[in-house]
Amino acid sequence: MKRVKPREVFIGRLSHGGDLLEEITDICQRKNIQLGWIEALGAVQRARLGFYNQETHKYEFFTVDQPLEITKLVGNVSLEDNSPFVHAHITLADKRGNAYGGHLASGTVVFACEFILEIFDGPMLKRDFDETTGLSLWPMADS
Amino acid sequence: MKRVKPREVFIGRLSHGGDLLEEITDICQRKNIQLGWIEALGAVQRARLGFYNQETHKYEFFTVDQPLEITKLVGNVSLEDNSPFVHAHITLADKRGNAYGGHLASGTVVFACEFILEIFDGPMLKRDFDETTGLSLWPMADS
Amino acid sequence: MKRVKPREVFIGRLSHGGDLLEEITDICQRKNIQLGWIEALGAVQRARLGFYNQETHKYEFFTVDQPLEITKLVGNVSLEDNSPFVHAHITLADKRGNAYGGHLASGTVVFACEFILEIFDGPMLKRDFDETTGLSLWPMADS
Repeated sequence: MKRVKPREVFIGRLSHGGDLLEEITDICQRKNIQLGWIEALGAVQRARLGFYNQETHKYEFFTVDQPLEITKLVGNVSLEDNSPFVHAHITLADKRGNAYGGHLASGTVVFACEFILEIFDGPMLKRDFDETTGLSLWPMADS
Repeated sequence: MKRVKPREVFIGRLSHGGDLLEEITDICQRKNIQLGWIEALGAVQRARLGFYNQETHKYEFFTVDQPLEITKLVGNVSLEDNSPFVHAHITLADKRGNAYGGHLASGTVVFACEFILEIFDGPMLKRDFDETTGLSLWPMADS
Repeated sequence: MKRVKPREVFIGRLSHGGDLLEEITDICQRKNIQLGWIEALGAVQRARLGFYNQETHKYEFFTVDQPLEITKLVGNVSLEDNSPFVHAHITLADKRGNAYGGHLASGTVVFACEFILEIFDGPMLKRDFDETTGLSLWPMADS
């Protein structure tokens, strides 16, 4: 793990009808945020989620095609190929309160979403291919 | 979104038997917290949740009348009608591990609850009626 | 609740194949972290969760023996018997997006996990037996 230094905090909301993952990514790219942590709540018109198959090392994507509350979005921002990259997971609930979740994929449409985005200075965390998991992960070495 | 400035952080727990939403709101009103972010975990004796119907623009409330773990509460504090207003979503789990969630409503009874509350200075976020969603939302303009 | 003072923030990931709760606890004990808050996302190879029975005052543990996404881990670090103690709850999702959750127990195996750990100075929060709930809780008095 790396010791990082808080730089700025932003609180705001996303546009109705926007793509949840793309809106967050867009903010991070416009502001060139290289290291950050994001939390959010709200609602979506529909969700597209990923589940990482730990055997095939491939994401399996699926859609939950109904309005859902976002009971929690958590994600981070770091560098992949020298560009700000957002990795987020989301928990959702339907009208009966049943909860769903997974890796947030493009295709999740915002109804309303309020977020906090903390930005850090410090040693950059660059994602690199990890053979064991097949994922693009941060280095392990302590700082 | 608005750049905000961290002022204070509080960590604590809520009273056994209290109303989860009312306890948090009460803390924010007593301390006149105008901008904040809260995260919590714990357990409830029962939960009352809301699901926002995106067509009728009305909350539909329901009760999960059993003891549940709080696997996550996330919420924010901002101003509505010039008074501190708490907006929180919650994820819960029953004794078999099945998860539930939704908009936290009054009527959710604390068994035990540990929280962190971050308070910010900065441009106030005032909730105002948004015609598109029917919700009381923050302004969109960047600062 | 207690006013605490942010000291350091760490961002990192846990080892593939490690025990999720033990890895976090180990970090906190090696670094002698006495007060902290942790959030994480990722995936596990299997999960072992607890549900606190509010009548018998005993945890009931169970295993979800399949790969799952961590849609959210939230926890805190405080002192129990003068040693750093991690209390965490977790929300998970399976390949169909169904969500599970509970009190994080030993026996949950990391596939990949990215976390943020905020460390605080301030009045120590020491866990002590609470007769009403049967849990080891922080004191209630305000600071």
